[in-house]
Amino acid sequence: MLSINGNININYTEPEELRNHIGKTVTLRGSIYKIRNMSGFAFVILRTRRSMIQCIYSEEFSEFPLELLKEEACVILTGDVVAEERSKTGFELRMKQVEFLSSPAEELPIVINNKVVEASLDTLLDYRPITLRNEKERAIFKLQEGICRGFRDFLTSRQFTEIHSPKIVYAGAEGGANIFRLDYFGREAYLAQSPQFYKQMMVGVYERVFEIAPVYRAEKHDTSRHLNEYISVDLEMGYLESFHELMQMETRMLQYTIDFLRREYAQELALLQVKVPDITSIPAIRFHEAKQLISDRCKREIKDMEDFEPEEEKLLYELIKKETGSDFVFVTHYPTKKRPFYAMEDKDNPEVTYSFDLLFRGLEITTGGQRIHNYEEQIKKMLTRGMNPQAFGSYLMLHKYGIPPHGGLGLGLERFTSRLLEQNNVRYAALFPRDLKRLTP
Amino acid sequence: MLSINGNININYTEPEELRNHIGKTVTLRGSIYKIRNMSGFAFVILRTRRSMIQCIYSEEFSEFPLELLKEEACVILTGDVVAEERSKTGFELRMKQVEFLSSPAEELPIVINNKVVEASLDTLLDYRPITLRNEKERAIFKLQEGICRGFRDFLTSRQFTEIHSPKIVYAGAEGGANIFRLDYFGREAYLAQSPQFYKQMMVGVYERVFEIAPVYRAEKHDTSRHLNEYISVDLEMGYLESFHELMQMETRMLQYTIDFLRREYAQELALLQVKVPDITSIPAIRFHEAKQLISDRCKREIKDMEDFEPEEEKLLYELIKKETGSDFVFVTHYPTKKRPFYAMEDKDNPEVTYSFDLLFRGLEITTGGQRIHNYEEQIKKMLTRGMNPQAFGSYLMLHKYGIPPHGGLGLGLERFTSRLLEQNNVRYAALFPRDLKRLTP
Repeated sequence: MLSINGNININYTEPEELRNHIGKTVTLRGSIYKIRNMSGFAFVILRTRRSMIQCIYSEEFSEFPLELLKEEACVILTGDVVAEERSKTGFELRMKQVEFLSSPAEELPIVINNKVVEASLDTLLDYRPITLRNEKERAIFKLQEGICRGFRDFLTSRQFTEIHSPKIVYAGAEGGANIFRLDYFGREAYLAQSPQFYKQMMVGVYERVFEIAPVYRAEKHDTSRHLNEYISVDLEMGYLESFHELMQMETRMLQYTIDFLRREYAQELALLQVKVPDITSIPAIRFHEAKQLISDRCKREIKDMEDFEPEEEKLLYELIKKETGSDFVFVTHYPTKKRPFYAMEDKDNPEVTYSFDLLFRGLEITTGGQRIHNYEEQIKKMLTRGMNPQAFGSYLMLHKYGIPPHGGLGLGLERFTSRLLEQNNVRYAALFPRDLKRLTP
Repeated sequence: MLSINGNININYTEPEELRNHIGKTVTLRGSIYKIRNMSGFAFVILRTRRSMIQCIYSEEFSEFPLELLKEEACVILTGDVVAEERSKTGFELRMKQVEFLSSPAEELPIVINNKVVEASLDTLLDYRPITLRNEKERAIFKLQEGICRGFRDFLTSRQFTEIHSPKIVYAGAEGGANIFRLDYFGREAYLAQSPQFYKQMMVGVYERVFEIAPVYRAEKHDTSRHLNEYISVDLEMGYLESFHELMQMETRMLQYTIDFLRREYAQELALLQVKVPDITSIPAIRFHEAKQLISDRCKREIKDMEDFEPEEEKLLYELIKKETGSDFVFVTHYPTKKRPFYAMEDKDNPEVTYSFDLLFRGLEITTGGQRIHNYEEQIKKMLTRGMNPQAFGSYLMLHKYGIPPHGGLGLGLERFTSRLLEQNNVRYAALFPRDLKRLTP
């Protein structure tokens, strides 16, 4: 019987360690990203986990014919690390020997090793398994990893417990028609539009919870802002004194995460030339005041008193940016009519709710608010809306058997990433996006 | 306009800080978990985020009538922290004033504040939103959070990149009948059985990737080991020299995670009386040898040469435990027939694959192995199996355009948790389990 003790032999130099090996011979592994033939020598870029390594091929020191090298071949490379001022990293690798682990069977159908992939969005996505190998494309999702790590670190430090709620559910939290239906062993089930019910239940257990997981919206909108499956960063917290605490918590989370990215993902921020937003403070404006402001300043007629048009979100961003310098703006007190049945109404004006959206560079990235915690109040509101409380028996247990005043929010990970990178379509920030037309790759 | 600066006023004592306030008066928030009336006074347990706080009610110092207190009421409590040897925490809280934030509308239909919830599994799950408030029940999922944190920390430190792959997919990775079907805007789509295709694609991008996310199996097995939705901890890594590296990596991940739990989740380990396994090393045995061993030692006829019966997994555990002391065992070289089309076959014996399962206390918790990376080899194997490669165009891009030798594994989070806690049903380790009959809560 073999015995597996967890020891992993490291026979190769880690790409992150190369700068400590200047003047030495190293062996490392990676993909041939790009070959640029010059007269008498060649520049070869080796793609490793996170970095690109500038290598030099020359008949002077390379012990194999250049023709052997193919882009996207995976190799074990032995060479000398030499200081070189003109290289971004301060060194380059003189290729001596190469061993091939795999080679592409066909030439790539699309150029992936230029600064950007020059292709339409559809082509970029059709070839996602290979276009993601582009230096900038992959940096987007490395940064997205960093965003999640930042959120998670912050929430854990604030005593939030991470949960995993089911995505196959018996009822939709948000209601409406935009819900995917599923045959569940002969019964009708749905894909969760949000972890709303579950995170509220879990407030009764841990007081503060969060989840980072997929949610599903069967919306038929074919826009630059909608995905049918996306990653929602959800949090819910108990013992709220005011829904303002939720906005404070989100602001702090964003501040922490931006600092975290600056610290841990500086190379991706630089490569993607990210304009990192300043989040010293975020202005908050009431929904009706925001509508009025846009109307007054931009001489627009208000067509819909209960919601923003996408154009209005952009105008609001511009107004706020000009006035305060902020890339973010909280919009508060949304009309009760437009918010779900669990939203708590303003004590002084039941026409509006203790709720908010967060807009980032003109796009809604978060919806949040305080929830009803009183059982009778919740039942009454459901009845007013023509809902049948008996269909929500297990959800209503949380109200019936005692829950503190609480609230929470959901942040769309792809939307946040996309606005951070100032992309004009949220699909650029989804690894394998799902939309009305796209189910592959 | 309001300005939200991320500052959160902390007007209350954090429960974690109480021991630093002995001799002082504090105000904190929580739920009344349990009231035990004694003669002339009462023990009251306050449930906070993660701990239970022993409080004393007495007419001597409490400025409110005891009858006001109700179990599961949420309160703001002011009292004196007093050193008390007989309390587990070394102190107790003398209740002075109480303010009610919410009260249960009805008495609880089930007792949740005993040491364990005395109820059948079905009742426990039917009332999940409240039974999870039990001290031990909630400790299970706090520990599960710790397991995920341990895995994630470890993988991040080993340069794995965390990804989010779609769960609505165009084809099933594992094939077979156990797949949930979905109407996706008039087209047939599926719920992902695993992130297999995507994590392999991403090896070409980041070399090492992982994902912790739900997967779906429409299995009609109503057993103590099956869930229809569960959390899969998946990893995939490139530049494998042998599939043994995967077992070494998993062993190290488990070692790290167990140490992490000991450090960060000691209170839950103690409360749940967890027998923490020793993972100095894990024995590995070939599948056919394991079958023979069980047959020889336990005088059993081998009925199925290609798979284990559940009973055999338990017997193997007992044999290995006796011989080596290990609670874990790797079983390697599973028959090719029983492994998916992407499994790499043993060069010396194509009847078996470079694959493994990990059994923990008699239950399979992981399946892993090396994958085919050569394009022609993959196409050939698909054709041999009667599959149509054209239906897998975007998956096969990874082979066609170059990928290093690679492999990976998937670990079932609920199964691992459940075996760690020696529960007799995996449902105890699923927050809101989904099975053949259960779709609620």
